[in-house]
Amino acid sequence: MTTLVFGHKAPDTDSTGSPLIWAWYMSHTGTPAEARLLGTPNTEALFVAERWGFDLPAVISDVEDGQDCVIVDTNNPAELPANINGANVTAIIDHHKLVGGLETKGPIDITIRPLACTATIMHDLMGDDLAKAPEGIRGLMLSCILSDTLEFRSPTTTDHDRAVAEALAADLGVSIADYSAEMFAAKSDVSSFSEAELIRMDSKEFTVDGTGLRVSVLETTSPAAVLSRKDALMAAMPGVAKEDGADEVMLFVVDILNEEATLLVPNDRVKAIAEASFDCTVSGDTVVLPGIMSRKKQIIPNLKA
Amino acid sequence: MTTLVFGHKAPDTDSTGSPLIWAWYMSHTGTPAEARLLGTPNTEALFVAERWGFDLPAVISDVEDGQDCVIVDTNNPAELPANINGANVTAIIDHHKLVGGLETKGPIDITIRPLACTATIMHDLMGDDLAKAPEGIRGLMLSCILSDTLEFRSPTTTDHDRAVAEALAADLGVSIADYSAEMFAAKSDVSSFSEAELIRMDSKEFTVDGTGLRVSVLETTSPAAVLSRKDALMAAMPGVAKEDGADEVMLFVVDILNEEATLLVPNDRVKAIAEASFDCTVSGDTVVLPGIMSRKKQIIPNLKA
Repeated sequence: MTTLVFGHKAPDTDSTGSPLIWAWYMSHTGTPAEARLLGTPNTEALFVAERWGFDLPAVISDVEDGQDCVIVDTNNPAELPANINGANVTAIIDHHKLVGGLETKGPIDITIRPLACTATIMHDLMGDDLAKAPEGIRGLMLSCILSDTLEFRSPTTTDHDRAVAEALAADLGVSIADYSAEMFAAKSDVSSFSEAELIRMDSKEFTVDGTGLRVSVLETTSPAAVLSRKDALMAAMPGVAKEDGADEVMLFVVDILNEEATLLVPNDRVKAIAEASFDCTVSGDTVVLPGIMSRKKQIIPNLKA
Repeated sequence: MTTLVFGHKAPDTDSTGSPLIWAWYMSHTGTPAEARLLGTPNTEALFVAERWGFDLPAVISDVEDGQDCVIVDTNNPAELPANINGANVTAIIDHHKLVGGLETKGPIDITIRPLACTATIMHDLMGDDLAKAPEGIRGLMLSCILSDTLEFRSPTTTDHDRAVAEALAADLGVSIADYSAEMFAAKSDVSSFSEAELIRMDSKEFTVDGTGLRVSVLETTSPAAVLSRKDALMAAMPGVAKEDGADEVMLFVVDILNEEATLLVPNDRVKAIAEASFDCTVSGDTVVLPGIMSRKKQIIPNLKA
C-alpha cells in the first residue's frame, strides 16, 4: 500500500512542501509514499511548488479505514480528515503543541520539536540522505523554513532553523532576501479570493475562556491591499463564524516587512478581547499591534476572552 | 527550577531506570533535573537500582501547577499524576501508542518510537554523550532493555534494541544471560506481595467493546510460585475490579523461560473473552497460551469482549 503523507487543512507552504519532502524520503528509503493535500494551497505554496518543479499533489477529502498515513505539520484532529483515527497512522512529524485527540493503533514514530518549521525537523531526521535529495526537495525545504519564519522575523525562529536555511540557500545558490521577497509577493497576491476565503486561508479555531474564536492571520507585504477590503471583511465575519460554529473571528493582518499586526475589530466583544489580551486601547475598527508576528508564540498564549 | 523526570505509575525497570538515565543526561547537558517515581518499583527495578549503585528516587503523588516535567515510558494521562496537564511538560520520550488526552502548553520535544524500550530511544538521542555517561547509567540502560524485551524473547524486541543491549553489555563486561537471570529471579520473588498488589503490579486498564478490563501481567521465571496462589488471586479479583472501576481483571502469568502465558479464568465472562480473543478452548480456571509474552503486541490487539 502506498503511504499518503499530508499536512493540515488550508495548506500553507510548510503543509504543502513537507509532505512532498517526506514522500520523497520515504520512497527513497524503501517505503512507497505520495503527498496529498487537504485543500487548495495558498498562493505562496502554489508559487513554491511551481518554482521547484513539482506538480501539486492531489486533494483528498478523507482517508479510508486502514489507509497508511503520515501526518506532518499538525497533530490536531480538527485539522485532519474526519476518519483520521480510522486510518493507520504510521508517523507524525510536527512542531505544534500536543493538543490530544489523536490516537494510534500501536506505537509509531512521532517526532515533535519546538522548531519553527516541520521541514527543519525533516532535515534533521534525513541526516546524510539529504545530500542525495534532488535540488527541488532541498528547495522546498528552504521555502518552508523561510515561509514559517517570515525570513527569520518571526519569534518562532530558532538558531537551528536559520542555520539550516542558510546552508540550504548557499548550497542551492539562492539569495535568501530575493527569494523570500518573491515568496512573500506571491503570498500577498490575494486579489482573487473572496472575503470568506481570506478569513479561512490561515485560520485555526480555539476555545478561550469558553468563547469559540476563529483566529485568522494574513501574512502580507502589502497590508494596504488587504485593509482596503476591511469593511467587506468585517461584514463577512458573522457569516463565517456562524458556519464554522465559532463565536467570533479575529483577523490579524501581519505586515511582514514592518513587523506588526493590524487586528480588525468588528464589535465590542472583539474590542474587549483585544484590550484584555494585548495591552492596547482600541478606538475605531482596527488596532495596530507592534511586533506581533506569530499566532503560536504571541497571539494564542495571550488571548483572554 | 529543577525538572522532574518520571515514568508511569506502578514503575517497572524501564519506568525506574529511564528517569534516572534522562535526569543524568539533562543535568550533564545543562538543565538541572532529578528522577522521581510514581509509586514503589517492582522487585526487579529495586534489584537493578541497587546493582548499579543508585538510590531510589523519591515517590511523588502529584505535580504542582507549572512544574517543569519530562514524561518517559508513557503518554497516557491515566498512568500519570492527576495534575499532569497543569504542569509544564517539556519533553516526552516513549514507545507506546498515542492514546490522546495529554496536552502541552506549547510545542515541546516529543520522541516516540516503535522500539521495545524507552532506554533504547534515549541511547539514540544521547548520541556521542553516552560515552561520557558513568558506568551506572549504561548499566541502567542495559537493564531496561533486557527487562522490556525479556532478554530478547518478547516479540516487541527489534534488531535495534538487541544491538544496543549487546553493545552495552560488551562495553560493561556483563554476560547478558547471567545478568538477565539475576534480574528475572529478582522479578520472580513476589512472596512479599498481597494478591491485590500482584494484580496491580504490572497492569493497565483498557475498554474493549464497552467492557472495562484491568489487564495484568506477571512476568516470572517461577510461574508455579504464582499459580500456587491461584485461588487467592481469583478471590481478590472482584474487589480489585470494583475499587478500580473495571468490569473484570485478566491476569496473565508470563513464563519467561518457556515463552507462554497462563491466563486465570475466574468466571464465564473472562472465559468468553479468552476464547473469543486467543483461539483457545477453556476448560477449568486457567488456560495456557503458547507464545504469548507481550501485552502490547499480543494481548491488547487481540482482545474481544
